[in-house]
Amino acid sequence: MPYFIGGVTADHHNLVARTPAEFKSMNDIDVLTRHEVLSIQAEDHTVTVRDLSSGREFEVPYTRLLLTTGADAVVPPVEGAGLEGVFTLRRLEDSVRIKEFISGHRPRRSVIVGGGPIGMEMCEALAALGLEVTVVEAAGQVMPYLSPEMASKVQARIEAEGVSCVLGQKVEGIEADGRGGLRGVATAAGDIAADLVLMAVGVRPSTRLASDAGVELGVKGAVKVDGRMRTSVEDIFAAGDCATTSNTITGLETWVPLGSTSRKQGRVAADSMFGGSPDFPGVQGTSAVKCFDLTIGRTGLDQKQATDAGFLPAVVEIEADSLHEYYPGRDSMSLKLLADGESGRLLGAEIVGRVRSIAEKRLDILAVAIGVGMTADDLQYVDLAYAPPYSTAVDVPIIAANVMTAKIRGSGCGCDTHGLS
Amino acid sequence: MPYFIGGVTADHHNLVARTPAEFKSMNDIDVLTRHEVLSIQAEDHTVTVRDLSSGREFEVPYTRLLLTTGADAVVPPVEGAGLEGVFTLRRLEDSVRIKEFISGHRPRRSVIVGGGPIGMEMCEALAALGLEVTVVEAAGQVMPYLSPEMASKVQARIEAEGVSCVLGQKVEGIEADGRGGLRGVATAAGDIAADLVLMAVGVRPSTRLASDAGVELGVKGAVKVDGRMRTSVEDIFAAGDCATTSNTITGLETWVPLGSTSRKQGRVAADSMFGGSPDFPGVQGTSAVKCFDLTIGRTGLDQKQATDAGFLPAVVEIEADSLHEYYPGRDSMSLKLLADGESGRLLGAEIVGRVRSIAEKRLDILAVAIGVGMTADDLQYVDLAYAPPYSTAVDVPIIAANVMTAKIRGSGCGCDTHGLS
Repeated sequence: MPYFIGGVTADHHNLVARTPAEFKSMNDIDVLTRHEVLSIQAEDHTVTVRDLSSGREFEVPYTRLLLTTGADAVVPPVEGAGLEGVFTLRRLEDSVRIKEFISGHRPRRSVIVGGGPIGMEMCEALAALGLEVTVVEAAGQVMPYLSPEMASKVQARIEAEGVSCVLGQKVEGIEADGRGGLRGVATAAGDIAADLVLMAVGVRPSTRLASDAGVELGVKGAVKVDGRMRTSVEDIFAAGDCATTSNTITGLETWVPLGSTSRKQGRVAADSMFGGSPDFPGVQGTSAVKCFDLTIGRTGLDQKQATDAGFLPAVVEIEADSLHEYYPGRDSMSLKLLADGESGRLLGAEIVGRVRSIAEKRLDILAVAIGVGMTADDLQYVDLAYAPPYSTAVDVPIIAANVMTAKIRGSGCGCDTHGLS
Repeated sequence: MPYFIGGVTADHHNLVARTPAEFKSMNDIDVLTRHEVLSIQAEDHTVTVRDLSSGREFEVPYTRLLLTTGADAVVPPVEGAGLEGVFTLRRLEDSVRIKEFISGHRPRRSVIVGGGPIGMEMCEALAALGLEVTVVEAAGQVMPYLSPEMASKVQARIEAEGVSCVLGQKVEGIEADGRGGLRGVATAAGDIAADLVLMAVGVRPSTRLASDAGVELGVKGAVKVDGRMRTSVEDIFAAGDCATTSNTITGLETWVPLGSTSRKQGRVAADSMFGGSPDFPGVQGTSAVKCFDLTIGRTGLDQKQATDAGFLPAVVEIEADSLHEYYPGRDSMSLKLLADGESGRLLGAEIVGRVRSIAEKRLDILAVAIGVGMTADDLQYVDLAYAPPYSTAVDVPIIAANVMTAKIRGSGCGCDTHGLS
């Protein structure tokens, strides 16, 4: 949706993967839009549905039921959050409303409340439309899921693009200008003028239906499911942003609402509901976001999570180029790698690189390596594809593994690999 | 070197990772160029060296000796192979000679003998310089290390760029024009006019020194080494293109001369020579090459290798886009995935995609997955980084794993995942 708002994607209809008509013609699936499920009667195996157009209510029986109610945007409980010009970005209609507001009202100054991935994507989108952008973030850094050193690289980049960052501040209220528009947002550090405010402080699982039906909730209030997407109530399954999962490294229940996970859970749920026995193994919190010409991503545990899980994290951070000096188009990336200082097991990685550096490739290599429990020593020898247009002869994840291995062995930083092209 | 010849890289000095002077100043390592080692006296722990400038010969003692003699280009024993205008491309001076020949003689028509990776890179380089290019390949397809279906995609692309392919033909001779230039190459299928001929039929390990010293040779005549790069002779080690390695999937001794492997073996050898005990686990034959706007790569076993190793290979081939339809810059790739039909263990992959599709990312994800012995089922759940600029919500390797899993389970092709964006 940020790409639709920012003009990269012209038509929001392209954001719909499959329409109700396509579901019908391709798979003979009936999709009822503008219908709300009011309640689940688990004992009777029925749901009560209201047709929002006609107001008619009716019961639909089920053999097995899948909850895919998703997550809703969190709106901070501040005065003025309901004013015109204040938005969240969660559903397709939100993006259409934001786009219409911008073309109708020509706002000049925008405030994005929340410096996470959605906030970063929207920085780029709003700046592309010519708006002034200020990010207000309660944490002391943008991208709170990154370590401070990596986050500061992101901050420096967005500031270079003209974005202002107000960190360590909460929005205390949003004020109208008395003429139908906004005046700005209030923080303890002062007021910030704004014609448009985007609330991007996060999402929470949408679980009212589930909890009303007696379905057990888990971490962060998401619907508790097992590896086969079964809830605590027989014949009710859940998948996607409304459901829990487990962290593949710690084994702990977690809630990481992401599209990539939803799609996998959906497949597992479908198989499971029809008697198959696949097991969704969980997630390791891999995610990536583009902001201006930066690719920003992480996977696995951060230092605190690793320590909490009983590991003794060793950390290395390297700067490396994507290609040899002689090949055009190379660019740099910063990679932070985390491993257990005793076993050498890889635990997590953060990457911030120029888009042109294809940092996401290195992130995905590390995601697979971390996911399977590789050690830093193992990673040194992965047989990656080398040709000058694609990487250096020793690619960035392997350089990081060389440095980590040397660090764990206590034999210096191994940095001689760096200067070599 | 193809990038230097083709003009992508302006200065061939940039192709030298580190000069002798840099070795000296950075690491206090003496590098003697224009010196040839004539023989190794293993019992005495000395080598006999000739200074090629002065002709002086002298002995150099060693405690431990590392052979990194590399590989030499194979020149087919055909008449005319020594004519001016006939080249191999292996050493830096070869590329300088080719470049000088082209600027000095302005050849119009070129024949590349050999349709492997070097041949493909040189197609692009010579075409970029405006030469007509004909590839003559003894096998019935270009890129003999790919399956015929995948190779045909490469052939179609290079033919669209104006390259002619003469397949299933060997060069029987190279003829001079009697005026100091070339007339062309002779094949059983007829003569092909050429002003420049590049022999790119492969390389063989350079092992005369080693074998003269009584060092045991292994597969393909390469210096036989163990995981610690030790040869059969005490205190003599070998690494890089002159040395054997093992295939990590089959465990068999193999010889796959590639820069990425050399660099890893070099590190292991250095550690091993100084008493460390790292073990180079081997390679799985991952490689990639760019040719025009195609990225071509493979990793792991092909069907024949898999069958020979006792697996029962199941194969799926998918066409997939790199990005969702709504995000600009997406492009397509063909991915062939091989797994054991019984255990589901991933065995190999081939990929041919547009450069813009970042097919090498998918290849590297698969390389790691195959290297650690993942099954197709496991690969379905790898937690890769998703954002619209980088991939579809379910990235290509996972789609292939979905299709493979469905195929192995016998429940259809699973192709419904394809149409979804």
